[in-house]
Amino acid sequence: MSDRPVFAAIRFVADPPTLELLDQRVLPGHVRHVTCVAAADTAAAIQQMVVRGAPAIGVAAAYGFYMAAVSASAAAGDRAAFDAALDAAYDVLSNSRPTAVNLRWALDRLRGVVSAARPGIALDAVCAAVLDDARAIAREDEAACRAMARHGLALLPAARADGTDGGVRILHHCNTGSLATSNYGTALGLIRAAHHADPRTFVYVDETRPRLQGARLTAFELVQENIDHLLIVDSAAAMLMSAKKVDLVTVGSDRIAASGHVANKIGTLSLAVNARHFGVPFVVVAPVSTIDLNALTGADIEIEEREDSEITHPCGLDCPAVAPAKTRTFNPAFDVTPPDLVTAIVTEYGIARPPYNESLAALCARAARDFI
Amino acid sequence: MSDRPVFAAIRFVADPPTLELLDQRVLPGHVRHVTCVAAADTAAAIQQMVVRGAPAIGVAAAYGFYMAAVSASAAAGDRAAFDAALDAAYDVLSNSRPTAVNLRWALDRLRGVVSAARPGIALDAVCAAVLDDARAIAREDEAACRAMARHGLALLPAARADGTDGGVRILHHCNTGSLATSNYGTALGLIRAAHHADPRTFVYVDETRPRLQGARLTAFELVQENIDHLLIVDSAAAMLMSAKKVDLVTVGSDRIAASGHVANKIGTLSLAVNARHFGVPFVVVAPVSTIDLNALTGADIEIEEREDSEITHPCGLDCPAVAPAKTRTFNPAFDVTPPDLVTAIVTEYGIARPPYNESLAALCARAARDFI
Repeated sequence: MSDRPVFAAIRFVADPPTLELLDQRVLPGHVRHVTCVAAADTAAAIQQMVVRGAPAIGVAAAYGFYMAAVSASAAAGDRAAFDAALDAAYDVLSNSRPTAVNLRWALDRLRGVVSAARPGIALDAVCAAVLDDARAIAREDEAACRAMARHGLALLPAARADGTDGGVRILHHCNTGSLATSNYGTALGLIRAAHHADPRTFVYVDETRPRLQGARLTAFELVQENIDHLLIVDSAAAMLMSAKKVDLVTVGSDRIAASGHVANKIGTLSLAVNARHFGVPFVVVAPVSTIDLNALTGADIEIEEREDSEITHPCGLDCPAVAPAKTRTFNPAFDVTPPDLVTAIVTEYGIARPPYNESLAALCARAARDFI
Repeated sequence: MSDRPVFAAIRFVADPPTLELLDQRVLPGHVRHVTCVAAADTAAAIQQMVVRGAPAIGVAAAYGFYMAAVSASAAAGDRAAFDAALDAAYDVLSNSRPTAVNLRWALDRLRGVVSAARPGIALDAVCAAVLDDARAIAREDEAACRAMARHGLALLPAARADGTDGGVRILHHCNTGSLATSNYGTALGLIRAAHHADPRTFVYVDETRPRLQGARLTAFELVQENIDHLLIVDSAAAMLMSAKKVDLVTVGSDRIAASGHVANKIGTLSLAVNARHFGVPFVVVAPVSTIDLNALTGADIEIEEREDSEITHPCGLDCPAVAPAKTRTFNPAFDVTPPDLVTAIVTEYGIARPPYNESLAALCARAARDFI
């Protein structure tokens, strides 16, 4: 296990302000970067999933907000115009993907930095404070990932469910690795740590239709790190669980309600139902910034629906459609798993267990104290 | 609902013996046929899934066996050589796909016709008897589909699960339509009949990874027949069920054990588990030739594993891979759903309900009496 992945999803250069995003749409075939220099192109890159993964889009949006501040500081004559420009940047960035709460959390935090700057302060200084905090968000995200992995190790089964010898077999959905965070990963960070502890650790990789983040990104990261794995179609997970070939299912999350309802990549609910049916632990790994106490239950989480072509053109518009031209799709990007199907939620502040309305509130309170 | 689909999966011309198969690998983009003139190329077409669907491959194999008989009759000097050539054809055809039992059932039936022909009979006459029976298999398959649809209508929910107005919403996996049978379809035949009874009937179409038979074939058939539908990724079915947007799940089968264990396209088990969890009826539609009383339980059913490229190249080898070159896959073509998750099994002889070891045996006994 290398501690520092070869590819970073996000690189930021301050002078001139330039956000370089690894284009995750063309991995693993091509390693190409998309350069953003403003809030608008950063929002477009998030919307088009050049960068994706709840923590990573929070970090990318933070840098996008900083670039908006720099440009507003150059253009705006006064603080009121500067604030108005930043409000516009906030809106365009926070609307780029509606479900992941980390995006809005990061933007709220930076807007708080701006509000905290007294009216008389030079705009340059406000920008510098925003950059400091954007960098802190990225740094803290990696630290949180490593803390989650440490906590999560306690949840790894000690042995295989079927009694055979060998490392435990973890089933993973979507991509929650270095590419989905500023580094290391959430659920895939736990898998890195498990592999570090026992190199025999084995991963079943859900391909994760429609965008194939499992095939394109998770398998890419596992190859990089020499972690043994097999790629499966999403619907094969049940068969593996029924054969007792899965010892743990682990996923990340884009938003967790106060009740413990977990919004995550489409397909997570199906895995959770099967995990319950076949007696496999189902563990969510996500930083506390994913917990949205304003969302009381799953019903309060907006689910993004995306375009037909993600389903009808699995290899992109350059390859033939796999469905008739007249066929429309229902393409929700996420689903919501109810708390009774979730064994545990691992955060950087520790592990939440049912009842989640109590345990999540307690973790959030600890996080808030730390932040103050 | 048109009673006679525009495209037939299988056409057979007797003179010279020519089997014309609609190439289902390139639908819906291209309508192209593959011509087979011998058992070997018929077996290759089955293996490569030019033709697929348990009943359809039974019919295709029957014609392949007949073509072997014609060629053996021309080449063989005597009955022993003829029989030996047919034994070889039986092996190559029955090994082309190991899971579907209809294939072997059709071949056993034709071999029975050959054995029933007394030693003195002219080989031409034996061939004629084989052709008659191959055509009977195709004809009976369509009649069975229509009978299954009639029986199955009794299982359609009278109203939507969520109490809203409108036609019932049926979720369907893989393709079980005209393209999977000699005509009409099994589970999709039931959907045709439901649509005939109420044109508001709505279908959620599982795309059915890895081969995308739902997107490529079922959506194609539904467009042809103007049946309202939406295409989804397989893993989105759970979300729809949790939102009470699915009133019935229906699938076909490739082999049903005496116990009621149902082998079907990978992903069926996951649907059945979710259907049970969310209280949605789960109905299997398959002719009695699918029931294999020699398979006592699911453990007796061989599950075919197919090559990596079906997963790593969703649009075929002409389009880029979606996974790293070093990544291997686990690619079972089928899974086995246990009887406790199956609400009912609809056959042309009526509906089997739990306990299946009794109800399936009774249906098979009735079918055997009919055949005698």
